[in-house]
Amino acid sequence: MSHDETETEARVRSAVGQRRELVNDAIDDDLPMAEPERLYEATRYILDAGGKRLRPTVSLLTGEALGDVEPLSADYRSFPALDGEPFDLLRAAVSVEVIQSFTLIHDDIMDEDDLRRGVPAVHEAYDTETAILAGDTLYAKAFELLSDTGADPAAGLEAVNMLASTCTRICEGQSLDVDFEARDDVTPEEYLDMVERKTAVLYGASAAIPAVLMGADEETADALYQYGVESGRAFQIHDDVLDLTVPSERLGKQRGSDLVEAKETLITLHARQQGVDVEALVSAPTPAEATEAEVDAAVDALDEAGSIEYARDMAEELATRSKQRLSVLPDNEARALLADIADFLVTRGH
Amino acid sequence: MSHDETETEARVRSAVGQRRELVNDAIDDDLPMAEPERLYEATRYILDAGGKRLRPTVSLLTGEALGDVEPLSADYRSFPALDGEPFDLLRAAVSVEVIQSFTLIHDDIMDEDDLRRGVPAVHEAYDTETAILAGDTLYAKAFELLSDTGADPAAGLEAVNMLASTCTRICEGQSLDVDFEARDDVTPEEYLDMVERKTAVLYGASAAIPAVLMGADEETADALYQYGVESGRAFQIHDDVLDLTVPSERLGKQRGSDLVEAKETLITLHARQQGVDVEALVSAPTPAEATEAEVDAAVDALDEAGSIEYARDMAEELATRSKQRLSVLPDNEARALLADIADFLVTRGH
Repeated sequence: MSHDETETEARVRSAVGQRRELVNDAIDDDLPMAEPERLYEATRYILDAGGKRLRPTVSLLTGEALGDVEPLSADYRSFPALDGEPFDLLRAAVSVEVIQSFTLIHDDIMDEDDLRRGVPAVHEAYDTETAILAGDTLYAKAFELLSDTGADPAAGLEAVNMLASTCTRICEGQSLDVDFEARDDVTPEEYLDMVERKTAVLYGASAAIPAVLMGADEETADALYQYGVESGRAFQIHDDVLDLTVPSERLGKQRGSDLVEAKETLITLHARQQGVDVEALVSAPTPAEATEAEVDAAVDALDEAGSIEYARDMAEELATRSKQRLSVLPDNEARALLADIADFLVTRGH
Repeated sequence: MSHDETETEARVRSAVGQRRELVNDAIDDDLPMAEPERLYEATRYILDAGGKRLRPTVSLLTGEALGDVEPLSADYRSFPALDGEPFDLLRAAVSVEVIQSFTLIHDDIMDEDDLRRGVPAVHEAYDTETAILAGDTLYAKAFELLSDTGADPAAGLEAVNMLASTCTRICEGQSLDVDFEARDDVTPEEYLDMVERKTAVLYGASAAIPAVLMGADEETADALYQYGVESGRAFQIHDDVLDLTVPSERLGKQRGSDLVEAKETLITLHARQQGVDVEALVSAPTPAEATEAEVDAAVDALDEAGSIEYARDMAEELATRSKQRLSVLPDNEARALLADIADFLVTRGH
């Protein structure tokens, strides 16, 4: 099993890696520097600070799977739609990544997170005004790009509508996340709904937008949206599991830091329902002050309540369901890679 | 002349007033309450706090002028495009107003303005997080609406692209405005460029988007965009003139408050170039503490430097030019009202 995981991981890392440079080059081309310089520098700052480019990779692979073309064999800038007419699949992929960057910048202001991708957040590196504006500029740019892919206009307009309603859902999710911080009675169902809106729908859009632009039928586009949403939810839940189960040195931060920071996750919400006094599990005021023994004991308590298994099962079930959605696609290498990504999201070790 | 002004004003107020209720009803229909409730309440808060609905009125009148229909005679929800096919002109008009609201909410955060339309700004009435998110939600909603007007898809996609690039320009303008506060060498040309991006382009989009959706040719849409941009610039410059020349009681705030608050306007920038020591004109630290005599003396100095006349001439020239753009439209009542609006923007007394 560990060997299988490694092979899946290797395939995913290779697929993402092969596309990352293309996506980065497209970002350079489609978001050129302009003036005011400081504003445009800020828009590029987080985009250039890294990021796996997982969402644009999903977009590119969906296009390849649906078009039944050999991965990396077609020019993404003039990619054949289902009727053979070329459109700019790469630009559509970039538009989703640009939306992701805008949400990161605004979320970091709201959550007062001062670090992002290992560098100061935009509102720290620049200032809050510039961060708000940089986010707003990226927001506009995403729609400029997606409305200019050369795809069939009716398809292009539908894709714009899908991205816009996805953005609405993201805002709703972030709002729920903020609201939940002031509540102590959030249910696992409410949490999952929040995660779906806040992060999973953009995975959904990443997979469905290429299908819409290529002229796929509604059933196919819907199935791909669900593939993305379910993978995205699985990803987030697995993240919560990793925070508790992976040694700190591999995690790159203190294990159990979600617990110490009193961040609700599917695991703590489930444990609460099982009668666990979650607040009492860890007494350290900051992750740096938490001892391994304290975290071990907390993890044991959550384990005994069945909460970690509950989350792990749910992540795996979502990944399985998401892979089943891919049956709307022709059976080919790109589709297999999309299935690998779903697996990777719930098996990755950090 | 004073009598003419009053007639123009009356016609404009009537045209805007007749459409305001329709626009308000459309806002109710197209931006229904949803959950999270607090978020959606915040999105509606500024929209419901009033506003003349001048931009949507311009959109509706442009549609009527271009379609050569009697004002208020056609159903704005199934308005005939140039090929006779119906589309939702009212929704397009609302999308522009929604963008305007989003920019007000975010600008008020950035400028630390705590009052808007006589009520606390969203970030005061709610909090900064909610204000950022409410703005982001309206941003998404505007694109949801504009991508769903039922217009010809190619036209719809072009309209989306126009609105998105307009939003980019608005962000650039706001960024320049913030940058200018830290500079003492801003030229009148730079100021005019900032005003064009920050406020005038959305007037441009208000006038041009209906033309695009109706299938007008590029020359017509461009001319209408320029009509809006030039009117919008004239509006802003006239605002600067009013601040100095209208008695406080009619202005609803202390006359000369821009000067006291050291806000650069076209007038102060021109005076600076004429060698006037603008900083020394008023010594009161707040508008409330400024005396009429002090403001009178300051206005006299700016008058002597020719700066007020310079601004007034420019506003009038822009209004004249903007009216000339309307020659692309059939000669009808709606076009006359668009011309009245351009006049109104530079003749209104407050």
